[in-house]
Order: sequence, then C-alpha cells, then structure tokens
Amino acid sequence: MAQNDTPAAPVPGFRAASAASGMRYRNRPDLGLIVADPYCGWSGVFTRNLCAAAPVLWSRERGRGRAILANAGQANAQTGERGLEDARISAEALSRLLGSRIAGVGTDDVLLASTGVIGQPVNMEALLAALPGLVEGLSPGGLEGFSRAILTTDTVPKAERAEVKEPGGASYSIWGCVKGSGMIAPDMATMLGFVLTDRPCSSGFLRQALREATDLSFNRITVDGDTSTNDSVFLVSSGAAGGPALEAPGSPGADLFREGLAAVLRGLARRIVDDGEGATKTVTVTVRGAASDAEALRAARAVAGSPLVKTAFFGEDANWGRVLAALGRSGAALDPYRVDLYLDSVPWVKGGVDNGREAEAQEVMRKRGYSLTADLHAGPGEASVLTCDLSHGYVTINGSYRS
Amino acid sequence: MAQNDTPAAPVPGFRAASAASGMRYRNRPDLGLIVADPYCGWSGVFTRNLCAAAPVLWSRERGRGRAILANAGQANAQTGERGLEDARISAEALSRLLGSRIAGVGTDDVLLASTGVIGQPVNMEALLAALPGLVEGLSPGGLEGFSRAILTTDTVPKAERAEVKEPGGASYSIWGCVKGSGMIAPDMATMLGFVLTDRPCSSGFLRQALREATDLSFNRITVDGDTSTNDSVFLVSSGAAGGPALEAPGSPGADLFREGLAAVLRGLARRIVDDGEGATKTVTVTVRGAASDAEALRAARAVAGSPLVKTAFFGEDANWGRVLAALGRSGAALDPYRVDLYLDSVPWVKGGVDNGREAEAQEVMRKRGYSLTADLHAGPGEASVLTCDLSHGYVTINGSYRS
Repeated sequence: MAQNDTPAAPVPGFRAASAASGMRYRNRPDLGLIVADPYCGWSGVFTRNLCAAAPVLWSRERGRGRAILANAGQANAQTGERGLEDARISAEALSRLLGSRIAGVGTDDVLLASTGVIGQPVNMEALLAALPGLVEGLSPGGLEGFSRAILTTDTVPKAERAEVKEPGGASYSIWGCVKGSGMIAPDMATMLGFVLTDRPCSSGFLRQALREATDLSFNRITVDGDTSTNDSVFLVSSGAAGGPALEAPGSPGADLFREGLAAVLRGLARRIVDDGEGATKTVTVTVRGAASDAEALRAARAVAGSPLVKTAFFGEDANWGRVLAALGRSGAALDPYRVDLYLDSVPWVKGGVDNGREAEAQEVMRKRGYSLTADLHAGPGEASVLTCDLSHGYVTINGSYRS
Repeated sequence: MAQNDTPAAPVPGFRAASAASGMRYRNRPDLGLIVADPYCGWSGVFTRNLCAAAPVLWSRERGRGRAILANAGQANAQTGERGLEDARISAEALSRLLGSRIAGVGTDDVLLASTGVIGQPVNMEALLAALPGLVEGLSPGGLEGFSRAILTTDTVPKAERAEVKEPGGASYSIWGCVKGSGMIAPDMATMLGFVLTDRPCSSGFLRQALREATDLSFNRITVDGDTSTNDSVFLVSSGAAGGPALEAPGSPGADLFREGLAAVLRGLARRIVDDGEGATKTVTVTVRGAASDAEALRAARAVAGSPLVKTAFFGEDANWGRVLAALGRSGAALDPYRVDLYLDSVPWVKGGVDNGREAEAQEVMRKRGYSLTADLHAGPGEASVLTCDLSHGYVTINGSYRS
C-alpha cells in the first residue's frame, strides 16, 4: 500500500466541483459537489449530538449516496422545519440537474453536509443559483477544489490517499478529505469527512468498515472537547475498479481495504489536530499498562483534554504534576507511585516521582510534535489519543469571531 | 443571619498567625496556622484524585483537628515516602511547640494543607525555622493574615462570614477563607478551604453538614475542569459560644447552622470563580425543566465547562448555537426545539430557535456577571453551576508560569 503519493489525483468513477456561491463568504469557494458515476454503495457516521443539524437528519435517512453537496458558512442547525425544508429543496434541485445527465439519479441519492454558524438558515437563493454551474463544472480533477470549498476556520485543506494493490493484481484508491479545526471532541470530532474509493463494496460492508476505522481515528482526537451538531463522515464506493464487491468482513481483500481505510482516516485525523484552532503542538498521548483498553482510553482522554496539560504543552513547561493529576482524576485504576511517564523516549517520571531529566524533557517539548506516554503498570490495557495545545490563538479565534 | 458585616473580626476560640518563611516565595507570607482553644470538633472533605498529596493523606486520618498548618508554594504531592515523612515531622514539631502552651495537644491534633507545584518536596528547613515565630505570633486577629498566606495564583484573599442568632438568644459566627483560582473542577474544586465556628458541634454533625454544603457550593463551580491532588476543606468548631453541642441532624439549631454554613460556602465558591485564572466574567449557568436534578446538573456542567461557550463569554458574542450544541451532547434528554434560553431575563432563544433579541443579549454579556438559563421543558429537574470565561489571561497564567 502506498500513501499520499498523488493526493490530488482523480479517483476513478468520481467527479467533483466547487464554487464561490457567496452564501456567506465573498470571493472564496464555499460550495462543493461530489458525484459517483458509476455508483456501488455508501455509508455514513453522524454526530450523536441531540441537536443534530438538518443535513444530518436528511443524510442519515438516505438509502443511496451517489451525490454529496457540501456548504461552508451556515450549519443549517437549529433551524427547525424551515431547515429540513431547505435541505429537501436543495436535494430536489440538485437531483433534477443531475438526473438529466446521469440516468436514475433521484432526490434520494443526494447526501447533504453543512458547516458554519448554528442557528443560521442556509442562503437558499445563493445556493440554488450556484447549482447549475456546479453541476456543469463537475470533473475528475475537481477533488482538490472540493477539499478547499468545505473549509471554515481551517487554515489548510486536508486530504489523504492510499493506493492499494491486491495480490490478484487488482488495484484501487482510497481518497479522503476533511474539514475541522475546532469543536473537536473525542466522540466524533466536529468535522465533515468525505472518503471515496473505486473498490466495489456493498453498503453493508462499508458501514462496518467505516465504524471500525472511525473509532480508531476521528474518535481518538481532541481539540477542545466540544462536539458539534453537524459531524458527518461519508464513505462512497463507485465500484469503477471492477470485479465483485466486498460484502462480508471475511471476504478476500477485506483486510487490505480496512487497512487502507484506517491509514487514510488516521492521516486525516492527524491533519485535523495539526490544524487545531490556534494549535502550535501535536501530541500523541498514550496510556499503557492500564487495567483494560477502556480504562487506558479514559485516562488518555483525561490527559489529552486537560486545559492545564494543554497550556503546559503551549508553554513548553515540563510540569509533569499536571499529567499525574489528570491521570489521578480520570477514573482509571492506578497506584500513583507506580506510574512512569515518557516524553518521546525520555524517561521523565519513574515510579511517580521526578527522574531528574527536566532538560531533556524540555527539549522534546520544544518540538512541533511528540509523544507523551504514561505506563500505569496496572494491566495490559493500552490506548492513544491525539491532541494539541491550548494557546492564545484558540482564545482569539473563538473569542472574537462568530465561527 | 447577617453575612459579611465584619469579615475580618475574630471567631471566639480561634487564634491564627502567618509568616513569610521563604519556603518558595520571597518576602510574601506563605505559611499560616490556625489553632482552636477550646476545641469541640472537626471535619474535612478531601480530593478524590488518586494522586492525593501527603498532607491530604495525613489529614484525613486524624481523629481531632485542633490546629491547621497550611503552606503555599509546594504541594507535597507525588513526593513519595519522603513527603509523608515530611508531613509527620511538621506535625510533630508543631505539636511540641503548641503542647507547651495548650494542654493536651499532640501530633494527632495537627491537620496539614499544602498548595503549589506537584512533585516538589516541602522546603523543610525553612518550614521548621518558621514554626516558633508562627506559634509566638498566634492572635485572635490573625485570620486576615492567614487568608493571605495561603494564596498562589489568586489575586485577592477570599473570606466570608455569617453571624447567626438562635431564637433562644445564643449567637455565634461561621467564618471561612479559601484559596483557589485554577485547577478548579466540579468534583471538589482545586482549593483549600478553612471554615471556623464557635458554635459547639460534634465532629459527626460537622461531617454531615460539611458534605451537604460542599455539594451545593464548591462542587458546583468550574474554572477549567481540572481536579487537583491537594483539595481540602476543613470545618472546625471551637465550641467557645457555649451550650450543648449540635449532634443530630434534627437538633434544635441544626437547620440554622446548616443555612449559615451553606451561605458562607456559596459565597466562598463565588469568590473563587470571580478570581478564576484570567476570568473577566462570572456566569451562573442554570438548567431547569430537565428530566431530573441529576440530568439538569449534567447539562449545566456541559455548558459551564465548554471551551467554546467560555470563549464566547470572553468575546461577549451572543452565539447561542454553542450553548445548544453543549446541551445536545451533555447526555441529558431534550427536544432541541423545545429549549428556551435566557440571558438574565432576556428571552434569547425560544423553542430552540433565535428569538430576535441579539442586541439585548449582547448587552447582558457585557456585564461582569450574569446568568444563563436553559429551560428544557422535559421535567422538573433543576441545577446551577457557576463558571467563568476562558480568556487570554488563563493561557498566559498557565502557559508561562509553573504554578
């Protein structure tokens, strides 16, 4: 499997387009469209927030997913009946335009994704006016533009690609792009994700593979502990690579696909944290030696989410007491005098007390990215969470801008 | 009951002293002592953090609490056997000095409290050298000085007082002071609290009263969601007011005492949030109409702890979508289109959608303190949590200073 050699190359069977609709921003792309032709199957995972936005409510009811329309700027969340009506109207208008070009495309084939300010309705006039040009502009080379049109407070587009070669000689791509840099919480980050493959797969297979890979990638990152109303990750197969579709978890090629998907999603998750609002550090927090994997995850999340730990990352202050305090309140079983801490490979704390390596620890903390590992010596459990620091930039972005 | 008329006045039966020991800071008081003479009873509540500090481990094992020695600067947490030994040596040295003045005082009468950097041992030389002067300096007027000696990143001393007059004519005081401005989490704030009364009370009665009042005060505030290794609240009765001691929850006078204690603790809790690290706003978050009080508390904590809500407080940005999103992920049952939000009395959101009152809402958010109320219309549950905003000041304090 090769990763990221040609991230912007087309994925067979998909065309994409983007447009500066003026829905909210001026002179920047804010509307994107992806269409699968041919189409094989799709799956999605969505926010568990009870205030789920209209596009989430719309998309999770769809049986097929041949087209995805995404807009940045207005979340269409907490917009009531009008929001649902706007979602339906958008899907209908798009399917009419697509239906005249691709046989059999109907309203039920259209998935929707929105990101932006909660409580603001979508600017439907601008959206509907932009649709014909968007459909007109669909092209295999449009994915890069799409990955830019979905951004809000993100500072860079984020895409990942894996090229998979099956032992039988068949080969295919898995490509994904995401948007997200704040409201990022462990339980589905606040984000939109679009993952495409030409490998034929049934919707059922995609559902299981996506859940599994999401759990180990997007559900293992945190920027600020908040979970949004609009989180959605879509996985669509065009099937253009040909051959029989993956159906069962044990099918030949299923493991390779899962591996490729996991690599793409993990890469995308890391890009979100790297681009976390105001982030100057990306830190992999690993807890091992916990009583169970679940306790390890709980402890890792407590450390990764602690504002005091995150400000210490920002300040490059090797203040290990804050890490111990977060572990101690996490709910994971531990003996505080058996805990070892490492910054990369520097043995920072041994048996719960200082190990006299502050200078080396500080050196690690000056890097842009590093790992913080806690060994609880309490069992076989292990888990990792990716996090960033809490900086002045985060406060500036979220304290001064209705994002 | 009168509150805060003479906060710095003595409490009969108590003497206090403070000293600039040089343990960590130069030329500022960092060591404080309170002694009860006579003595009637005591109780304490302590951190549930598994990495509890040596003074916490020491104090929670004591049967009596006639004297409390507190230091600021070194937490004596994660200091191993040496930390416990230092705690014992401090208590022994202090009890020897006190024993020659107050009959019957032994090592077991001494409670300890520390706050400061985790992992640093106490500077025992400086501490032991300062003890004789501290004991020498004990006076009824020393409480104000004590309330200053326990501070670290706090910007002001924090004390509260209630004067209680029982119907029978007896009267007494409840006085308390606290330290704490960061590492403040809902489940026992990171703080030290010292509460004194001359009302005779048994230790058993004090235990129950303190738990109850702590639950409704210090356990209902949040600055940053972190919980420290050193949290301790002490409640000591000198009994100097005379008469029979309160023993049972239903004793005559018990309700009045609980009421006075609750008022003092709530006042102290509010002072902590007002002085939260970098805080520019104090906001009372109330959730009513929840399915139960427990769900209301869960929802209020989600809103009060959300970094996105707290940065919106800082930015005075009436962005109600962040509040809805926090409620929606809190785990409390709700219909997003039945939620009403109020800023003070301004009906900000009605039935989950904007109510066209942004200008008035913004005006409320410009105040130093205000209330944010969410009515879920889902049941009779209600709860409140006090919080502050997340500002550049918090990042500066915790990102640049080993506090």
